[in-house]
Amino acid sequence: MAEEKWKTAITDIGPGKINVRGYQIADIMENLSYAEAVYLILKGERPTPAEAALMNAILVSSIDHGASPPSVLGTRTVMSGGNSLNAAIAGGVLVIGDTHGGAIEQSARILQDWVKKREENESWDETAGKLVNWLNEQNKRMPGLGHRLHKVDPRTGKLFEIAARHGYSGRHIELVKALEKAFEKKSGKPLPINVDGAIAAVISDMGFDWRLGKGFFIISRVPGLLAHAYEEMTREKPMRPLGPPPSEYDGPGERKL
Amino acid sequence: MAEEKWKTAITDIGPGKINVRGYQIADIMENLSYAEAVYLILKGERPTPAEAALMNAILVSSIDHGASPPSVLGTRTVMSGGNSLNAAIAGGVLVIGDTHGGAIEQSARILQDWVKKREENESWDETAGKLVNWLNEQNKRMPGLGHRLHKVDPRTGKLFEIAARHGYSGRHIELVKALEKAFEKKSGKPLPINVDGAIAAVISDMGFDWRLGKGFFIISRVPGLLAHAYEEMTREKPMRPLGPPPSEYDGPGERKL
Amino acid sequence: MAEEKWKTAITDIGPGKINVRGYQIADIMENLSYAEAVYLILKGERPTPAEAALMNAILVSSIDHGASPPSVLGTRTVMSGGNSLNAAIAGGVLVIGDTHGGAIEQSARILQDWVKKREENESWDETAGKLVNWLNEQNKRMPGLGHRLHKVDPRTGKLFEIAARHGYSGRHIELVKALEKAFEKKSGKPLPINVDGAIAAVISDMGFDWRLGKGFFIISRVPGLLAHAYEEMTREKPMRPLGPPPSEYDGPGERKL
Amino acid sequence: MAEEKWKTAITDIGPGKINVRGYQIADIMENLSYAEAVYLILKGERPTPAEAALMNAILVSSIDHGASPPSVLGTRTVMSGGNSLNAAIAGGVLVIGDTHGGAIEQSARILQDWVKKREENESWDETAGKLVNWLNEQNKRMPGLGHRLHKVDPRTGKLFEIAARHGYSGRHIELVKALEKAFEKKSGKPLPINVDGAIAAVISDMGFDWRLGKGFFIISRVPGLLAHAYEEMTREKPMRPLGPPPSEYDGPGERKL
Repeated sequence: MAEEKWKTAITDIGPGKINVRGYQIADIMENLSYAEAVYLILKGERPTPAEAALMNAILVSSIDHGASPPSVLGTRTVMSGGNSLNAAIAGGVLVIGDTHGGAIEQSARILQDWVKKREENESWDETAGKLVNWLNEQNKRMPGLGHRLHKVDPRTGKLFEIAARHGYSGRHIELVKALEKAFEKKSGKPLPINVDGAIAAVISDMGFDWRLGKGFFIISRVPGLLAHAYEEMTREKPMRPLGPPPSEYDGPGERKL
Repeated sequence: MAEEKWKTAITDIGPGKINVRGYQIADIMENLSYAEAVYLILKGERPTPAEAALMNAILVSSIDHGASPPSVLGTRTVMSGGNSLNAAIAGGVLVIGDTHGGAIEQSARILQDWVKKREENESWDETAGKLVNWLNEQNKRMPGLGHRLHKVDPRTGKLFEIAARHGYSGRHIELVKALEKAFEKKSGKPLPINVDGAIAAVISDMGFDWRLGKGFFIISRVPGLLAHAYEEMTREKPMRPLGPPPSEYDGPGERKL
Repeated sequence: MAEEKWKTAITDIGPGKINVRGYQIADIMENLSYAEAVYLILKGERPTPAEAALMNAILVSSIDHGASPPSVLGTRTVMSGGNSLNAAIAGGVLVIGDTHGGAIEQSARILQDWVKKREENESWDETAGKLVNWLNEQNKRMPGLGHRLHKVDPRTGKLFEIAARHGYSGRHIELVKALEKAFEKKSGKPLPINVDGAIAAVISDMGFDWRLGKGFFIISRVPGLLAHAYEEMTREKPMRPLGPPPSEYDGPGERKL
Repeated sequence: MAEEKWKTAITDIGPGKINVRGYQIADIMENLSYAEAVYLILKGERPTPAEAALMNAILVSSIDHGASPPSVLGTRTVMSGGNSLNAAIAGGVLVIGDTHGGAIEQSARILQDWVKKREENESWDETAGKLVNWLNEQNKRMPGLGHRLHKVDPRTGKLFEIAARHGYSGRHIELVKALEKAFEKKSGKPLPINVDGAIAAVISDMGFDWRLGKGFFIISRVPGLLAHAYEEMTREKPMRPLGPPPSEYDGPGERKL
């Protein structure tokens, strides 16, 4: 049975009243950018100008990555099956799991853990060194470093450039940069911070819980999924061969019951 | 079997290259607001300053509406069942159908149809009058006018105010305003334009296909759904009684096979 | 606000009591096959022996169709993205739309319409002829006839064989068979009833509403989707290249903001 | 990029050929019940008569549980928002997570672990005693025992009765029964095996991987979700107040930007 009343601290609703985190919706429409409104609704308070610029850059950075990500395949497959726009977007969002879009969350979790574990007077290089050792012991890859396609991720550089310009650099950005150096020193090969690692460090410095990590990626990517859904709807025939390729059956041969 | 190559005109991807509609991602991160980037990815071109302000206001306007909308119930129910953030958001997006969030699409469709049907030298009041008659003949309500809760929707006024300030008023805004007048004249009671009707008119004047209507609502609402998912995750126990209320069984009484 | 109490005629619940359509769950577990239980819960009454055999054959017939259907792509893509079993199955079910799995519903709708329209003393060949003309006028293909892969669908023959053995042939089966003949007579080429058309005719003769059509396909296919999800989980690496193929970008070339 | 060919051992497809695990589909339609076909597609081999009876009883047992489960709320909310049948069922399946329907998986995992850990010549009571201690040390509840509503679950008794009648009792059934005794002995209060615990034990004795646990619940429940979707579609108005109840806002009071 449903409780008497739900409690919520997000939005206060009444006749003629829609107050998000205490601010009137018309006041937000007038005075905040959408990226600032996203920060406000998730954090409860409005961002500083530095945070506003970074949140805007984060949301822009992951808006689309062409036709290859599996979430695009999810969205286009649902659309191609003869379904509605919202089902197609839900189908793409469903694909965004631990191995696709999950790196922000996983990277932020580790960064937040190790910033807490860091001892007084420890240098960031020392903390990064300990973290590299811990990853090796766990036989674990560090999420948020390295990329299949981009040797240098154009999004990472721009995000850190915007942060630097605003003098915005907290402990998680320090740690992830020390970590990049530590990996290169150890293996002799660069393992550059990718966009997920950069976003993870920035949202951690903003004070967001790592459990929200996938959420920033989802918000950012939904317009991309919508663009693909619409392109599928308007440029392609329903049920065109989206794949998979002809499969090779390797189970038991024909037999009788 | 999958085709040789998919075609897409959205984003061009290569090593170190992510170009959305021809613009480098770092250039967009630097120079566009997220609302402008949303416009760009969906339209293919960047918005004018008026369109940028309006797109920002549209995305802010529908970011959340408290705990009562059914999409929030969808998101919280999935989260409460012990699922991941992306599944919870997908669960909310799935609820956004013809009767919840569908009014933008339906309203934009009718406005776009009647702007096309309008004869030369016809006044907007005449077109609106014909449209009211057509709706009556079809025994159809006009989507985008009237609201269960808000007699005056604070979002509508603000959206039209921003449009007016920028001198932005196209044929669909003219038509929806004439329609509001025509309904009041006919029935003597006000039937004010709600936020869905206002958004429908503005995106139609921007040149967006009505079939994208639900998409703007989905993009705008996803951060709200994320805030509710996170509030459920952090403030509530799993499987709390979300409803429905105790049900009354009115089927056949007990019997034997 | 939620209503005081929901009404439902499906299942009556109380301490120690789970009565489905009036029958105790333990009584159903003991005395009905699962296919009969599916019939019972959807129809409200238990099937005759002929209907039980046919419902069983229907549910078996569509349990899987290899790796090629788009719903399998949906399920495997969600699983490969690092998600839970239920999200993967939901992802596959989402794909089952008007152009994939929708033929049962569409075919049943037309058959039910034309059985109602049929005039007294009209032969089935006459009704079928009128229906073929109507389809031509509408420039419409008849759903449930023809198949991309199977010239003769082994499932159709078996379903009608089981029906014949039980002396089960109602008006919708008569009509779809007359329709198959009418098409061949008209074009000189066979356009055989496929499994969707056969199921549509049988469930229509059982008295099911055509709006339930997709539902039978979904129930039947869920175990297949589960088998594919599990095969993906246990035989494949996460985020293996599921497609799409490398895409060809055909949008605007690089430009500056 | 998609691989050259996918591999699958589930179903072999060709013109006129649909062989599930090596058996022709028409042969399965003729000779197997749907519950046997479900076993076949998931296990790769057909069940014994005891296993067939048990699989049938399992699938029947969880077909519906009235209007109160959150998955029903998910399905009805999606349907009520003005969406398609498949989206409504996907919405319900999405809710079936770790805290709703997850007990089969969790219970089977523990039972399978402890059957493996059991030492030679150890009695089931000894193993159960060790498991109870381990649960206490972990401060963990045993999933699959106890129920909010049913003191005695009619489905558990019937499932074990069918197993006993067929002389079917393996190590996991032994362990869960010893566990029920151990809990009662320890606390003096009964903590009866519920339907999830009973299903977990039976599928474990059948040799199914615990990771398939949620899958059996999903297959079983989909017809129930369909019945609720159809009841919502045909008996209720769109967007009826499904909940939540009026919420109490407890965030910040009104303020200015």
